[in-house]
Amino acid sequence: MRYARVSVGGRAVWGRVDDDTVRLLSGSPLDADTAPTVIGAVPRAEAVWLPPVVPPVFYAVGMNYTRHIEHAHALGDANAVMPGRPEVGYRANNALTGHLSPIVRPAGVTGRFEAEPELVAVIGRTLRRASYEEARAGIFGWTIGNDISARTWQHQDRTFWRSKNADTFKPMGPWIETEVDALAQTTVLRVDGEVRASFPTGGMVFDPYDYLVEMTRYLTLRPGDVLWMGAESTCQIAPGDTVEVEISGIGVLANPVQEETA
Amino acid sequence: MRYARVSVGGRAVWGRVDDDTVRLLSGSPLDADTAPTVIGAVPRAEAVWLPPVVPPVFYAVGMNYTRHIEHAHALGDANAVMPGRPEVGYRANNALTGHLSPIVRPAGVTGRFEAEPELVAVIGRTLRRASYEEARAGIFGWTIGNDISARTWQHQDRTFWRSKNADTFKPMGPWIETEVDALAQTTVLRVDGEVRASFPTGGMVFDPYDYLVEMTRYLTLRPGDVLWMGAESTCQIAPGDTVEVEISGIGVLANPVQEETA
Repeated sequence: MRYARVSVGGRAVWGRVDDDTVRLLSGSPLDADTAPTVIGAVPRAEAVWLPPVVPPVFYAVGMNYTRHIEHAHALGDANAVMPGRPEVGYRANNALTGHLSPIVRPAGVTGRFEAEPELVAVIGRTLRRASYEEARAGIFGWTIGNDISARTWQHQDRTFWRSKNADTFKPMGPWIETEVDALAQTTVLRVDGEVRASFPTGGMVFDPYDYLVEMTRYLTLRPGDVLWMGAESTCQIAPGDTVEVEISGIGVLANPVQEETA
Repeated sequence: MRYARVSVGGRAVWGRVDDDTVRLLSGSPLDADTAPTVIGAVPRAEAVWLPPVVPPVFYAVGMNYTRHIEHAHALGDANAVMPGRPEVGYRANNALTGHLSPIVRPAGVTGRFEAEPELVAVIGRTLRRASYEEARAGIFGWTIGNDISARTWQHQDRTFWRSKNADTFKPMGPWIETEVDALAQTTVLRVDGEVRASFPTGGMVFDPYDYLVEMTRYLTLRPGDVLWMGAESTCQIAPGDTVEVEISGIGVLANPVQEETA
């Protein structure tokens, strides 16, 4: 099943995505108390896609693909060392944007401006002190994220507040796929139709369930929380480009890149 | 006016706090579209306090009081240098807990376990490219935060995920005060009634409006977002203690400290 959030008359509405149609739902499929019913439909080609969920907490894994760590290390990032345990960081909801919405490059950005194609786990249950099997069962589904990064700011700033969390820097979508073997897929990054990166989703140092087990030793995960799993490869993007992240079995997240205008 | 969120029959309900009574409201005072009406009341002494808001984005300032920076530097924190510009970081909603709820020290914590008493700005309007005056007008009110930190984890981990964002590490409350000159108050930190720190709220390197102006050059702030303003002094706490943060003109945030039990 594919679940999305679309904008209908300026309101965010959950939907179930079929081949040609988005069937609008009365509520969230993440709400365990009520089974949502179908209350309408929009043609899929006309859907205005929102981020499929606005997470209570937005978790992200920084260094989790071997080749990405080696690449960053070669570029002089002293923090790029193989992690000895699964540790998470955070991103911010203001930066989220949906499928087909623009990524806006802020006026002050110079230097490398990059896309990172990521598998995203969407939590479906409250999890605390979860076993590996409980962690597996606790995932509602999977979506796609594009972790846009302004590298000059990343090096200048104390935190990722500008470099990774400026408005529109976190495209996510187009939907949540609940029935995919997420670690047996291929992630492809394209710019204007040209392949810039391609890697197996499963080439991680620690898998999503390893993270959930370790995280829930200390914290409670709740339905709608997301965990972005990192990328093996990145590429530079610029205004005028259209950047696509495809994960087989899930879908394609596409966003045009624009220059900020005053 | 003082606004809080209390638990009524397991549900979170907004309330307006009077001397003896919490008047329950039909909706959020942060929702500009509807003026909430009074739908009930609970005696203030019996209120079950929740964090007064669950923010869409939880912002926190790390180094913003001169004496705190000097103190951290003296303790060997190489990152403790005077900031040249207002930069923010993040905390996570899972860590929030309300007035009178326990701070739970996880079983694995060793070394310094500390409380940091902080003034918290609650955003009331959507802000983007705000002027200093717009930033002032954009604040809904002020509350109190206690930024609990496990220092050994802070030094061991790549991010603040365990050291500052374990469950219960972010007490906030008891309410949002909308009519206080927040930068002309005194912050007092007490353990079991004994004063451990006391400093003027206004002794900041950059004030809250400076932060909002700089932040909204790059990002959109929304109603309910919070900005924790940092602390000048901290103190160690331990299971069995009751820790209180008082900010004159706002109130007292009190939390007992407990040891984690399996």
